[in-house]
Amino acid sequence: MLNKKTLISALFAVCASASAFAQPERPNIVVILADDLGYSDVSFNGSKDITTPNLDKLAANGTVMTSAYAAHPFCGPSRAGLMTGRYPHRFGSQFNLPTNHKSGGLGIPTDEKFISKVLQESGYYTVAVGKWHLGETPEYHPNARGFDDYYGFTGGGHDYFPEKYQKKYQASLARGMDATIFDYIRPLERNGKEVRETEYVTDGLARETAAYIDKASKQDKPFFIYAAFNAPHTPMQAKDEDMAMFPNIKDKKRKVYAGMVYALDRAVGRIVDQLKASGEYENTLIVFFSDNGGKTPTGASNEPLRGRKGDTLEGGYRVPMFFHWPNKIPARDNYYHVISALDLFPTFANLAGADLTGVKKLDGVDVLDAVINGENARPGQSVFAMRHRYGYSDVGVRKDNFKALRFGSKDEWQLYDVNKDPSETKDLSGKYPVLLSQLKEEAEIWAWQHAEPKWFHIHREGFQWREKAMPRFHETFNYKPMYGE
Amino acid sequence: MLNKKTLISALFAVCASASAFAQPERPNIVVILADDLGYSDVSFNGSKDITTPNLDKLAANGTVMTSAYAAHPFCGPSRAGLMTGRYPHRFGSQFNLPTNHKSGGLGIPTDEKFISKVLQESGYYTVAVGKWHLGETPEYHPNARGFDDYYGFTGGGHDYFPEKYQKKYQASLARGMDATIFDYIRPLERNGKEVRETEYVTDGLARETAAYIDKASKQDKPFFIYAAFNAPHTPMQAKDEDMAMFPNIKDKKRKVYAGMVYALDRAVGRIVDQLKASGEYENTLIVFFSDNGGKTPTGASNEPLRGRKGDTLEGGYRVPMFFHWPNKIPARDNYYHVISALDLFPTFANLAGADLTGVKKLDGVDVLDAVINGENARPGQSVFAMRHRYGYSDVGVRKDNFKALRFGSKDEWQLYDVNKDPSETKDLSGKYPVLLSQLKEEAEIWAWQHAEPKWFHIHREGFQWREKAMPRFHETFNYKPMYGE
Amino acid sequence: MLNKKTLISALFAVCASASAFAQPERPNIVVILADDLGYSDVSFNGSKDITTPNLDKLAANGTVMTSAYAAHPFCGPSRAGLMTGRYPHRFGSQFNLPTNHKSGGLGIPTDEKFISKVLQESGYYTVAVGKWHLGETPEYHPNARGFDDYYGFTGGGHDYFPEKYQKKYQASLARGMDATIFDYIRPLERNGKEVRETEYVTDGLARETAAYIDKASKQDKPFFIYAAFNAPHTPMQAKDEDMAMFPNIKDKKRKVYAGMVYALDRAVGRIVDQLKASGEYENTLIVFFSDNGGKTPTGASNEPLRGRKGDTLEGGYRVPMFFHWPNKIPARDNYYHVISALDLFPTFANLAGADLTGVKKLDGVDVLDAVINGENARPGQSVFAMRHRYGYSDVGVRKDNFKALRFGSKDEWQLYDVNKDPSETKDLSGKYPVLLSQLKEEAEIWAWQHAEPKWFHIHREGFQWREKAMPRFHETFNYKPMYGE
Repeated sequence: MLNKKTLISALFAVCASASAFAQPERPNIVVILADDLGYSDVSFNGSKDITTPNLDKLAANGTVMTSAYAAHPFCGPSRAGLMTGRYPHRFGSQFNLPTNHKSGGLGIPTDEKFISKVLQESGYYTVAVGKWHLGETPEYHPNARGFDDYYGFTGGGHDYFPEKYQKKYQASLARGMDATIFDYIRPLERNGKEVRETEYVTDGLARETAAYIDKASKQDKPFFIYAAFNAPHTPMQAKDEDMAMFPNIKDKKRKVYAGMVYALDRAVGRIVDQLKASGEYENTLIVFFSDNGGKTPTGASNEPLRGRKGDTLEGGYRVPMFFHWPNKIPARDNYYHVISALDLFPTFANLAGADLTGVKKLDGVDVLDAVINGENARPGQSVFAMRHRYGYSDVGVRKDNFKALRFGSKDEWQLYDVNKDPSETKDLSGKYPVLLSQLKEEAEIWAWQHAEPKWFHIHREGFQWREKAMPRFHETFNYKPMYGE
Repeated sequence: MLNKKTLISALFAVCASASAFAQPERPNIVVILADDLGYSDVSFNGSKDITTPNLDKLAANGTVMTSAYAAHPFCGPSRAGLMTGRYPHRFGSQFNLPTNHKSGGLGIPTDEKFISKVLQESGYYTVAVGKWHLGETPEYHPNARGFDDYYGFTGGGHDYFPEKYQKKYQASLARGMDATIFDYIRPLERNGKEVRETEYVTDGLARETAAYIDKASKQDKPFFIYAAFNAPHTPMQAKDEDMAMFPNIKDKKRKVYAGMVYALDRAVGRIVDQLKASGEYENTLIVFFSDNGGKTPTGASNEPLRGRKGDTLEGGYRVPMFFHWPNKIPARDNYYHVISALDLFPTFANLAGADLTGVKKLDGVDVLDAVINGENARPGQSVFAMRHRYGYSDVGVRKDNFKALRFGSKDEWQLYDVNKDPSETKDLSGKYPVLLSQLKEEAEIWAWQHAEPKWFHIHREGFQWREKAMPRFHETFNYKPMYGE
Repeated sequence: MLNKKTLISALFAVCASASAFAQPERPNIVVILADDLGYSDVSFNGSKDITTPNLDKLAANGTVMTSAYAAHPFCGPSRAGLMTGRYPHRFGSQFNLPTNHKSGGLGIPTDEKFISKVLQESGYYTVAVGKWHLGETPEYHPNARGFDDYYGFTGGGHDYFPEKYQKKYQASLARGMDATIFDYIRPLERNGKEVRETEYVTDGLARETAAYIDKASKQDKPFFIYAAFNAPHTPMQAKDEDMAMFPNIKDKKRKVYAGMVYALDRAVGRIVDQLKASGEYENTLIVFFSDNGGKTPTGASNEPLRGRKGDTLEGGYRVPMFFHWPNKIPARDNYYHVISALDLFPTFANLAGADLTGVKKLDGVDVLDAVINGENARPGQSVFAMRHRYGYSDVGVRKDNFKALRFGSKDEWQLYDVNKDPSETKDLSGKYPVLLSQLKEEAEIWAWQHAEPKWFHIHREGFQWREKAMPRFHETFNYKPMYGE
């Protein structure tokens, strides 16, 4: 496959030097990423109370993946995996960056090449909109990682109502607290320059994404747009008109949550409208998914999955996902094979015929043909998740229909057929002990490749890591050496 | 300011290629650094028992800074900060290098560019005399860090009487203990070659500094001389004639200490005499200060400041300082605004019109204009100090007149107006809680940028660091995250 | 000496450009490394029950070193020291690599230049046969570290009987456990490509070594062959015919062990026969030794030395060794001066007149002249060993006839004249306290140069390291600083 790719890449290089000549065969790529969206919080994936008409329409005409996994059960590492095509543990990014402008000088290591950079170098016009969360200082900024244009906020989240957060921001400034103002209320930016957003942020990001599609469509190159909405991440702030769409929802939290998702769906509609208006709809691969599972305490639902954001239970990192590309991707509502957010890097790179020079060993696979044909893209290959807690690690190892699970500090591994039993209720570890031991062993081999965390979300996590002499993999894997030294 | 500098630098580059042409407008720079000299151990700064006539004369004709801070409360990191213009915590140099030739292969990271290198590259003749303490192997030697010439000892201190330490050294050699002989009794060196010093070391260093000034004055370039006296650092060894100058001092320790300071003052006189004799006095900026506060148990005094060397109390790192430059720096005995040893790097670099390529983000500011005009060089900007102890960290955050202080393992932050209350007696934390919380937060943001220590002074410190899962910043800052992940 | 080398190197460079011209004066070098072979498990070194006729013949015509030390008391670090000429602690390789294909991405750092690379660059044809144990992924493979050809297995050991291990391997494959199959039963390889070995592995490696000698002898360059037999390392598997050679050995373990050594001796015979047949015997330096002491629980004997593999007692790392080179190395059965496996790098490099550009500071010395003349190659210079245990470190410091020893967690250093008292029975620490304190101090200076371990053999070791806040050198050396900061 490498050879084919190299060839394609070489051809494009020739074309590129012949220049003004258009390359119709390379599709545009639009990634729409939701934030903390639960598995069953969109109607195409089973929500009974939240309606998402625009997403549903796309989903109905595309392939819905029912076993899609984020690269990690929470935000920062999940996005690091998406951008690098590699498990964040490999490069010490297994924790969120410190909040609140404490991440100066910290970010995803610059020797990890982002898919945006790969696509940019292969001739794509590249745009990021929304939440970044991968480093705030110049060397880690979207514009330094392969995005020609960027509009959004580089921290881990943002307030939604400009009039409110701007007031808070001005008050803080007046108190002389510039360096310490919380990320969530700082001004948005365009390519590093502060801007004054005026719309509810989800609407603002939709407006900008649409505008960039318009700009992109006027260029002689395909485009890659990474629209990373912060909805429905905290703070829980919805427009009254959006909440009013759900008169039947009585629970207050759920109502706010539903309103935030509804705004997200409206944003998707706006993006689709612009793609059509710009004549790019037919030649655009749209990938929609969430960065991790829903946070149930703030109103999300992952049913029928067990667990929530942060867990290695299915509810923690199995996410709603679809691919949409007219005449290429078939309409199918249950592509049940495993797909990982890590697969998007090689899939996109191959679509672009991109050169992978400088890209380290990727952890995902090109899934395009498998998705088109409804086949398993990685028979016999495992997909891993590991989340470090205070003194122990939770693990998930998904291979084909099965998943080995370690959850909680007690060293008891379980095994589930998560295809038949997505709620992880029937432990099959007694039935398939060899399979379980094989999955554990694979995860241990993977864990040996982890680097020490380069940062922690808060100082306390770092202390706990050191205090407990983490990562304590000997307990996680309970490894018994066979021969001596 | 960067642009102006670049321009000046470019102009000098042109001049340099035109070569033999003198550049009278660039001043010579002479840094005279004392070692462990207390805040009130020089008469110009309030000493009642120690007389320092030569220092006093310079101080009277220059600007005395009453709120000058070393980069760290003890020696190695303080000097690392001076040389790099950056907090030593940024590059893992927050502890002293191991003593006694155990620092083989250790030293201030070579990707930190020293002010000496910057000045050397901009056309200065550069000389270091005295104590180094920044790495002993060739890659860390003064000659490798930008000094054309060096005379002194690369360890952290030295005995003073040659006839005595040479005898001890020979006895050790005779016992076949070459590799393990204590640094303090080894021969001095000139540019890496052993020499046999014959004078009391303070006098010897003065002699060499004067000789280098003479050599420098015969060259067609300005010069930078870093005269780093070890006096009055331990071992406490004074000449009888110097102690005899203080018949009124009864305390034995204080008498020895006073004698050592008196010798240092004589050395300063000798340097000034040579500057005059060489015709360089008028065009030379002299900066005098101490690497940290006085060590009271060995006879120093930091009155009215609280605390001593090693503390983040004022007595630990507020030091006597003056700038002297005829017709440029006004005679002023109380420049009370904050100045940091970290400021010398950008100040000197700008004076030299030096190119800062390869220099990382500096922590100080160019203070020249502010000092000349008696203004605050960094309104609203904090200066930090942090010293790691066994299981906790002491912190000082100075901004304008105020200082937030954490001292001791109990998590109680205090706030002082150290301008009015340099003895840190009236805790204002209850009065200005917002200011205190802001200073804490700024220090926490700064702490996120620290690197793991690359070494420890003694192995025990390293064990303690690991045993207590340091740096335990969660306790130091008692940080409460606002939003979740 | 450097200058002489540089000169020779320059001359060879001239010769090399004149090309087809042979360089008869540069000898071939053949290193025959045994694995876990005990000090007294070869008859030339005192074994009373195991006969090793082929080794004995070489030993009788060469110089037998009675105080030869491996670079470390166990396998991986010992070989890392051999290949780099540097203590493995310097580059974080003080533990064995993780077993069982868990070492993906781990290996001896690539900025450590191997002797094989140095010899290859100086014009030698270079071959490795047998066990590698220095990294399994491509960047760490023998072919990437300076070996033109390689036949063997890259892990830390191997089963011996192909028909048996291949059956186990196929069974594992059939269970779909490819990623997790134990190293010891995987196929051997030639230059990265799997091969199907058919002979008892010791015989197979002998066959390949002989074949490479044949190939080498047909080239216009000298050769360097590193024949790293896994015998007599576990698993304990001997041929019946070899065990039958020892009817007097009743102990079952010892009988198997003896059979394995006998096969190794046969392999040596085969290598010698081929050297003679190829006409290379006279111009070849053969160095035979073991990577560490014998593992007594599996049948080895280190008598009269105390301790076994893994210990810093003499039995842990003093190993049988001889040099053989007709007309160059004299026949001598007791070269009693200290020699270290670390000495082979500079010795070989000088023999080849090799350029040492890119080679870091070597820890050994060129011993050739000293061996020829029966002199001490490093008078007054120490050879160190340090093995980290659970919460403490064992240390050995050998200088001239003496050895300082710390063994076990109690902080009691001992001193032995290991020349007269190789069993380490008479503690001389009371008699020579100054010498002991000097050796301790030297070891501490050396320890300051250690890097953090880059990996651990099993995850448990890593946890223990962190849990106990290792390396705890303050306890190992019980250092008391003389002056303050």
